[in-house]
Amino acid sequence: MTDNFSSTERDAICKVIHARRDMRHFTGGTVAPDVLRRILAAAHAAPSVGFMQPWRFIRVTDRALRERLAGVVELERRRTAEVMGKRKSEFLRLKVEGIRDCAELIAVVMAPDDGTVFGRRTMPEAMALASCACAIENMWLVARAENLGMGWVSFFEPEAVARLLAIPAGAQAIALLCLGPVASFYEAPMLKIEGWRDRLPLEAVLGENRYPGE
Amino acid sequence: MTDNFSSTERDAICKVIHARRDMRHFTGGTVAPDVLRRILAAAHAAPSVGFMQPWRFIRVTDRALRERLAGVVELERRRTAEVMGKRKSEFLRLKVEGIRDCAELIAVVMAPDDGTVFGRRTMPEAMALASCACAIENMWLVARAENLGMGWVSFFEPEAVARLLAIPAGAQAIALLCLGPVASFYEAPMLKIEGWRDRLPLEAVLGENRYPGE
Repeated sequence: MTDNFSSTERDAICKVIHARRDMRHFTGGTVAPDVLRRILAAAHAAPSVGFMQPWRFIRVTDRALRERLAGVVELERRRTAEVMGKRKSEFLRLKVEGIRDCAELIAVVMAPDDGTVFGRRTMPEAMALASCACAIENMWLVARAENLGMGWVSFFEPEAVARLLAIPAGAQAIALLCLGPVASFYEAPMLKIEGWRDRLPLEAVLGENRYPGE
Repeated sequence: MTDNFSSTERDAICKVIHARRDMRHFTGGTVAPDVLRRILAAAHAAPSVGFMQPWRFIRVTDRALRERLAGVVELERRRTAEVMGKRKSEFLRLKVEGIRDCAELIAVVMAPDDGTVFGRRTMPEAMALASCACAIENMWLVARAENLGMGWVSFFEPEAVARLLAIPAGAQAIALLCLGPVASFYEAPMLKIEGWRDRLPLEAVLGENRYPGE
C-alpha cells in the first residue's frame, strides 16, 4: 500500500474526527443497505491484537427484541440515577440514549476468548476489548462521514443483554449502537453543552517522559 | 455542527480506514511538531464514557528511557515465544515491534479511576479502556493520513512499564505506540501477509437478531 494521502484527504479525516459526536437524538428513518455495509466493513477493517478480530455484530431488526433491550437500558439508567447523589435530578433530565428512535440498532459483542497469545499474554481481556473499541470508532467515523449519527449505549447489565441476545458463554456485550439519521449534530459533546463536564485541555493529558501533572 | 460531508470526503475517510496498518518497520526520521500535535488532538477528540477522557499520553524523548522500555518489550516477546508451542520458531521470525526504529514513541496510559458512574456503573474498567482505545484508533488514522506509520505494541508487563514511567497508582499502561516515517505500508495486515492468520469474512462476524454462526 504505497498510496499517499493528499492534504485534502487529510483535512477530511481530521474534520470527521472532530465532528463525530455521541448522538442520542435520532429522527427514525432508515440506513441504506450499501451505507450500512460500508459502516460494518469499516468496523471489520479495525486493528486487532494478534489479528484475532474479536468483534461480533448483531443487527437488531426484530422490534420486540429492540423493546426488550430498551427496557434493560432504562432499568440501568434508573439504577445509575440512584447512585448519582446530588446530581440525580440533573442526570435524569439528560437524554442518554436513542434506542427506540434510531434507524438501526447494532449490538457489539466481544467473542469468547479464542486463546490468542500474540500480543495479549499479559493483558488478554483488555486487548480483545480494545480491538472491539477500535472497530466501533471506525463505525462512528464512517457513519458521521455518511452524515448519520451514532451513539454508544453502555447503560446495561451485560448479563441481561447476553440473555436477550442468547450469546454464547464467554462472549460479552459491550455496546448497543444507535445509528441513523439525525436532525443535526451537537456542536460539542452533549455532556459539555449540558454543563455536565468540560473538555480537559490537551496539556492536561500529555506529558514528556513522565505522567502529565506529576 | 450542521456540516455535511461530501462523497469526496467520505471516500477519503473510508480509504484511510482500509489503508491503516499496524506497522513494525520504520525508517527513523522525525515527526514535525504540527503533525504530532494534530495526531494528539485527534486522540483527545475521541469519545469517552461520561466524557471522562481517561487517556494520558507520555511522549518518550529520553533515549535511555526508550531503551529500557525496549528491554521490557523484548523480555515479553521471549516469554510469549515460550508459550507459542509449535509456532514458536515461526513467531520468533516475525518482527513484532519497531520501538528502537520509530521516530516517536508514545506511551498511552489509562488514568486512575475518577469515579465516573455515568455509562459505566456495570462495566467501569471496560468502558474507560474502550475510550482509550478509541483515542488510539483516531491517532492511527490521522497518522496514516499524514503518511506516517503507527504500531500498537502490547508486548509488555504493565507493571514493568508502570515502574519505568513512574505512573501513579491505579493508572495502567495499555500501549506503547511507535510512530513515524516508513518506507512503505503493508498491502494487508502483516500477520496476514506472513501467513500467521487470515481475515475472517464479514459474514462470519455479523448476525441478524442472533449471534453470528449460532
